[in-house]
Amino acid sequence: MTAIRLGLGEKSYDVLIGRGLSGRLGELLRERVPDAAGSAAGGGGIAVVADGAAWGLHGGALAASMARAGLDFSAVTLEPGERGKSLEGLGALYSAFAAMGLRRGGLVIAFGGGVTGDLAGFAAATWMRGLPYAQVPTTLLAQVDSGIGGKTAINIDEGKNLVGAFRQPLLVASDTALLDTLPPREFRCGMAEVIKYGAIRSKSLFEAVKGPLPAERLEGVIGECCRIKGGIVERDELDTGERMLLNFGHTFGHAVEKLGGYSRHSHGEAVASGMALAAAIGERAGITRAGCADGLRGALRAQGLPDGCEYGPDELLPQLRLDKKSGGGGVCMAMIRDIGDSFLRQMGYGELEACCSGLWRADAGFG
Amino acid sequence: MTAIRLGLGEKSYDVLIGRGLSGRLGELLRERVPDAAGSAAGGGGIAVVADGAAWGLHGGALAASMARAGLDFSAVTLEPGERGKSLEGLGALYSAFAAMGLRRGGLVIAFGGGVTGDLAGFAAATWMRGLPYAQVPTTLLAQVDSGIGGKTAINIDEGKNLVGAFRQPLLVASDTALLDTLPPREFRCGMAEVIKYGAIRSKSLFEAVKGPLPAERLEGVIGECCRIKGGIVERDELDTGERMLLNFGHTFGHAVEKLGGYSRHSHGEAVASGMALAAAIGERAGITRAGCADGLRGALRAQGLPDGCEYGPDELLPQLRLDKKSGGGGVCMAMIRDIGDSFLRQMGYGELEACCSGLWRADAGFG
Repeated sequence: MTAIRLGLGEKSYDVLIGRGLSGRLGELLRERVPDAAGSAAGGGGIAVVADGAAWGLHGGALAASMARAGLDFSAVTLEPGERGKSLEGLGALYSAFAAMGLRRGGLVIAFGGGVTGDLAGFAAATWMRGLPYAQVPTTLLAQVDSGIGGKTAINIDEGKNLVGAFRQPLLVASDTALLDTLPPREFRCGMAEVIKYGAIRSKSLFEAVKGPLPAERLEGVIGECCRIKGGIVERDELDTGERMLLNFGHTFGHAVEKLGGYSRHSHGEAVASGMALAAAIGERAGITRAGCADGLRGALRAQGLPDGCEYGPDELLPQLRLDKKSGGGGVCMAMIRDIGDSFLRQMGYGELEACCSGLWRADAGFG
Repeated sequence: MTAIRLGLGEKSYDVLIGRGLSGRLGELLRERVPDAAGSAAGGGGIAVVADGAAWGLHGGALAASMARAGLDFSAVTLEPGERGKSLEGLGALYSAFAAMGLRRGGLVIAFGGGVTGDLAGFAAATWMRGLPYAQVPTTLLAQVDSGIGGKTAINIDEGKNLVGAFRQPLLVASDTALLDTLPPREFRCGMAEVIKYGAIRSKSLFEAVKGPLPAERLEGVIGECCRIKGGIVERDELDTGERMLLNFGHTFGHAVEKLGGYSRHSHGEAVASGMALAAAIGERAGITRAGCADGLRGALRAQGLPDGCEYGPDELLPQLRLDKKSGGGGVCMAMIRDIGDSFLRQMGYGELEACCSGLWRADAGFG
């Protein structure tokens, strides 16, 4: 087991990574979350909010471990897909919390991927003005990225993650065995974020994932991603500076997701497109070393991810204006100087338009 | 002008009370909220969320003062009534924020009563994972109670204020001139909370409001309420102890509101019924000095407020189980020993039932 401590004062917590952790969750909660036993024993209740598919496959082991630890809980399962991460999905979750009698002193456990973690985390952050929660991420993407760092959110029609809260979990327990049953497309989606960590902060991590990843290296790679993200979150929890580096590929990525109606492209695929675009735009702007875009696109292809984008600048650029990092006639974007070396730069809308011009082939999009 | 500082570390802020303050809001923001000018000047925007009725009467003066201070803003007005304080109302407000381009670096101003402040504050707390906000309370109730202390919330079908966030405002500016146009029923509603502050913490305040209140004493009475609440919030921001004293009358009050479909009884009327009940139950339980209930009921009647309750214990008690302070076979209630002297007590459901028995007349409810 790998354990990584996020040092955030009173809000510090551990990210645990290892095979079989979800089948030991009850024990881990008993050991590491002193109030969990009190929550279960009439103190407010424990709600497990689970992705339906993950629950069907692995819920039994989790439930058995909770029973062994004497932690009573109620489970609510979510339909798969980004659609549930909405005001309607949130309302349904609140109703489930009310029906199970979840109260102050209680605890929420998110068991699923990024959608489950974001929605359950936001529901926990706002139910009775805030309950604590733990993350048990079941996808590679959630284990390396969305499950740690305390960002919770839902989507609204006008854009992705426009509503949310910063709220750190009490514990993150990432079970790598759950990835054995992950659909290949979902695994690739997580690899997009792994490539992102390499691109922004670690050339050696990037080298390790630009080809096939041996199974025995997986825990180490997840741990490395968590160490990078953890360090950044420690220094900038509220996303006003360095943390925005984690958005490499996400500015255009969010636009791509939205243009695809949040269903055509997975988050990871959209981020892959966004990274390829950001690197290519960076080269044209003279701020990214020539050749980086090709290197990045090669790694994306090697992981079965898109290395281009089907939407044109006329579709993408208008979406950027509602980005949380937009303002002052442009958008604050994470850019790379080189693989492993990133920085923030205010990209003017005019500059972006100029850089985009010529990147797109008239017939077939970018890439 | 009366100024009361709430000392909450980095989250400290001033509560200002005086005639005409809303017509000086621009100037006050310039003086006391250093980032306000930046928000207006392309930094994220300023959204004024206003109760439609208050905006119609007093929005012009507020807008003129913002213009004089060079603070551009967009206004969104809310339909009156508790119904808007819902997930649907929240969604509409988020859409308005998106339409006006409100972004990080922006500021929300709540201009209205408790419903407006709770809804706008919660929307601010969750839009883009949290923007700062200022309160300009336009009702007596909001000026003495809901507008200060950083509790924001919405209702769901299952109960009132079950969803929300703790988020302190940057500034509270209470304009007593706005109370001149307040409908009498709304003014009485605020007086219920004023009587509450007297009952829980200040015999002299209670004496001052057990009869008609001269207009020239209003600012002083509001200031005294804010001082009491401010001190309590400073010591217990997150409502885990002393702050629950502010819920005197609210445990049964919330049940009364819900039984009336959130429309039959105003919040203040429901709290009045709840205080009368809590005092009467306290006397029967032997924890409240005999005669307190009569004294309290006399003050309520003098302010034109209900001093009884039309619902029976069979209707009220089941509602208590979903109260945020319920758990462990009972509910943690604020009770009084005497006027001005309050404490928290876990009231078992059985004990409550026993105390209620006999308080109700078969034909006409309690009171």
